[in-house]
Amino acid sequence: MALQPRNPEDRPIAALLAPDILALLEESPADLAAETEEIHPADLADVAEALDRDKLQAFLAALGPARAADVLEYLDEELRTEFLESVTPRQAAELVSQMTPDDRADTLEEIDEEHVEDILSEITPEARQETERLLSYEPDTAGGLMTTEFVSVAANMTVEVALENVRAVARSGRKEAMHNIYTTDEQGRIAGVMSLRELLAAPSGARISEIAWSEVVSVAPQADREEVARVISNYDMVAVPVVSESGHMMGVITVDDVIDAIQEEQTEDVQKFGGMEALDEPYMQIGLMTMIKKRAGWLSVLLVSEMLTTTAMQHFDVELQKVAVLSLFVPLVMSSGGNSGSQATSLVTRAMALREVELRDWWRVFLRELPSGLMLGAILGVIGMTRISLWQYLATNHPSFPIGYNYGAHWGLIATTVGCSLVGIVTFGTLAGSMLPFVLRRMGFDPASASAPFVATLVDVTGLSIYFLVALIVLHGTLL
Amino acid sequence: MALQPRNPEDRPIAALLAPDILALLEESPADLAAETEEIHPADLADVAEALDRDKLQAFLAALGPARAADVLEYLDEELRTEFLESVTPRQAAELVSQMTPDDRADTLEEIDEEHVEDILSEITPEARQETERLLSYEPDTAGGLMTTEFVSVAANMTVEVALENVRAVARSGRKEAMHNIYTTDEQGRIAGVMSLRELLAAPSGARISEIAWSEVVSVAPQADREEVARVISNYDMVAVPVVSESGHMMGVITVDDVIDAIQEEQTEDVQKFGGMEALDEPYMQIGLMTMIKKRAGWLSVLLVSEMLTTTAMQHFDVELQKVAVLSLFVPLVMSSGGNSGSQATSLVTRAMALREVELRDWWRVFLRELPSGLMLGAILGVIGMTRISLWQYLATNHPSFPIGYNYGAHWGLIATTVGCSLVGIVTFGTLAGSMLPFVLRRMGFDPASASAPFVATLVDVTGLSIYFLVALIVLHGTLL
Repeated sequence: MALQPRNPEDRPIAALLAPDILALLEESPADLAAETEEIHPADLADVAEALDRDKLQAFLAALGPARAADVLEYLDEELRTEFLESVTPRQAAELVSQMTPDDRADTLEEIDEEHVEDILSEITPEARQETERLLSYEPDTAGGLMTTEFVSVAANMTVEVALENVRAVARSGRKEAMHNIYTTDEQGRIAGVMSLRELLAAPSGARISEIAWSEVVSVAPQADREEVARVISNYDMVAVPVVSESGHMMGVITVDDVIDAIQEEQTEDVQKFGGMEALDEPYMQIGLMTMIKKRAGWLSVLLVSEMLTTTAMQHFDVELQKVAVLSLFVPLVMSSGGNSGSQATSLVTRAMALREVELRDWWRVFLRELPSGLMLGAILGVIGMTRISLWQYLATNHPSFPIGYNYGAHWGLIATTVGCSLVGIVTFGTLAGSMLPFVLRRMGFDPASASAPFVATLVDVTGLSIYFLVALIVLHGTLL
Repeated sequence: MALQPRNPEDRPIAALLAPDILALLEESPADLAAETEEIHPADLADVAEALDRDKLQAFLAALGPARAADVLEYLDEELRTEFLESVTPRQAAELVSQMTPDDRADTLEEIDEEHVEDILSEITPEARQETERLLSYEPDTAGGLMTTEFVSVAANMTVEVALENVRAVARSGRKEAMHNIYTTDEQGRIAGVMSLRELLAAPSGARISEIAWSEVVSVAPQADREEVARVISNYDMVAVPVVSESGHMMGVITVDDVIDAIQEEQTEDVQKFGGMEALDEPYMQIGLMTMIKKRAGWLSVLLVSEMLTTTAMQHFDVELQKVAVLSLFVPLVMSSGGNSGSQATSLVTRAMALREVELRDWWRVFLRELPSGLMLGAILGVIGMTRISLWQYLATNHPSFPIGYNYGAHWGLIATTVGCSLVGIVTFGTLAGSMLPFVLRRMGFDPASASAPFVATLVDVTGLSIYFLVALIVLHGTLL
């Protein structure tokens, strides 16, 4: 009986399979391929990752090159690179030859350039040329995501002949993307598309030209992966063709690669919003120094910017010395501005990423955020004033109660200062946080660079100034 | 000549198509369906959204029910709901009858319950029952995402007979998911799966049982949509079957719905990280009061927590009055803790969402973040001390230079206080930020609730205490 994989919900599957596979590998490696043929390569890759490094080669060798190539496609990137650099170029070439062109290019992208040269010299000239062409595209563009093997049929074929052609390709064991079938004109320009299902549904005897859709949704090779994801998701596609400016079909991007791209893009956005450069590597694998470098840059920039708060505080040092009680609320009012700014920024950057909001919508967003900021500020202002009044009440009427605090004879004015400042600061924070992504995009930067710490820093300095200005006005003639 | 859609990169397509379609609608609505047959329903939905509301019904009527149903599936949710509530139940029923079961359920989910009753009473009892069953699942589970129409064949059929069956289904115009073909046993339990491609590649004369994979990766109906996304993405699938505990196949989830689910999940995570409840509606469409409600809750909680900073400041008010210069650096040191915490939290929550990090890894993460925090703190500490020394130097040696500031005779000790505090606060912020998602998850909360403002608030109070404690130690015997 073949080894059993299980429902992926009871992970980790590798832990369950690994002992059996290890035993097979020791005792009868010749049976390994047959015994594991029902197991998904993604699960075998999990098993491979859990094996000792010195067993990995024996394991992949026992699977045979075609199956081993499948497993390599799902293997952890770093381990795959390490493995392919450790075997002979000929062995590596045998494995990568079995991959689809896009996976082959993605695999070689990670490997040392010298090794790549050696490996490429061992594969067929055609495959070599194709791989080199794919490697010339940026990995996060349509060209870098596409595979170059797809199925096309002539427009004047009958449905039955085309179907036989498609079956022949499927039987050849080659790995063409086959969700959709394309037609091209004499010059090789894309002319039509139909799904495999539409081909099957077509009445026998009909011509392909009667079946195929002549309007083809496509992307340009230099399109950003975000754009590719938007097209695939907007049109509910399983594969999207990549078409050059002259109309020639260059390849196909399949939805599985798009999902991976969406996940990577999202990881970048989350990390940027957290206030650092995107790591571009899994957290547990990245080197400590590389990670510190990616984090220290923004932290230092933010610290230097935040020094303006010290400057602002110095500017008001006379007031601070006169009314020392004012300094008690500095952290409170400052952080509220940062918090409301962070909310507004996360809302707007996400809406921009989803194209719910475009650059031209800034004024509409402003008109939504202004009343939001005022109302949120009013709510926080009331809470702040209540807190001060309560502490004052406890200190004067129940002095034995430990949490009271006497803010002095003019405590009411202090409470008013804090309350009014909160309205101003929260409104300012909301507006600044919501407008920052527009400003960044207008200036040609990624709006996702508007991180929570960035907004907080931006708002802190202004927030302090608002606080002291309100204090100057409210306390004028009494404390100041 | 039919109206031409274009490459989606030159958006907005609706703006281009709308005038032609409007003209057709006025002049010869009978031709509209034929003239727009090559246009993707997603583009027609964009056109529909740009139309005046009173023209929408005429437009959809001119398209005919099947095509109109396609367009409705891509239409903005709110507009779709509004439209279906505005037509008669019979008209609505005619439209939703044309949808796939999952889209029909998703559509009715948004509509007023009374209306749903009326509409369901107009469709066939079978479709009604099926829809009611789908509506009983939570929308963000596998059951809520699946469609119930899929293609299954008997295991003992020959490939040719099975293929004829599949072609018959495809020709029927029904909307079964057809990326994969399933086999079931006599009890209706799932027994095998093959892709359409594998069916086409099979040698004629072979039996289905020889072709199908007997191990089927599947999900349970109650599986969370995040789990479904992980399975689809992990195994590079185009569709995943939903299988009950007893092994019965209940439906299929297709990749297009999974992509939508991934996007929604990401939007929620981004909004939570920004420090608010997830909006669950597009930013430009949500009502102002609903949005304020979703934002005010967290802001108020954070404000109340942040009041502890005031308590901390009050606790050190004697020290603050003696060494007023200390208050100048409060915003600086406090914000650095929040920034480093926000970085660490975004890293860890994202790594958790991608399953790179599990609960049991907390200690490994701690051991990575401790040296990271110390080094980042040291870098910031040096920058902070340099800043103070420089200002002091300018104030004493170049008093005409406007930016200098005299921190007093013990300025070196002040600089030391700020520098050492930064090391402590950044280290604490990093550790707190990285451990918070683990604590939340351990307590059964969503680790994505660990928002940037939440972490900042958590770190602020401790950061202040660290600052004043360092000051007490460093300045002991001189200023304090």
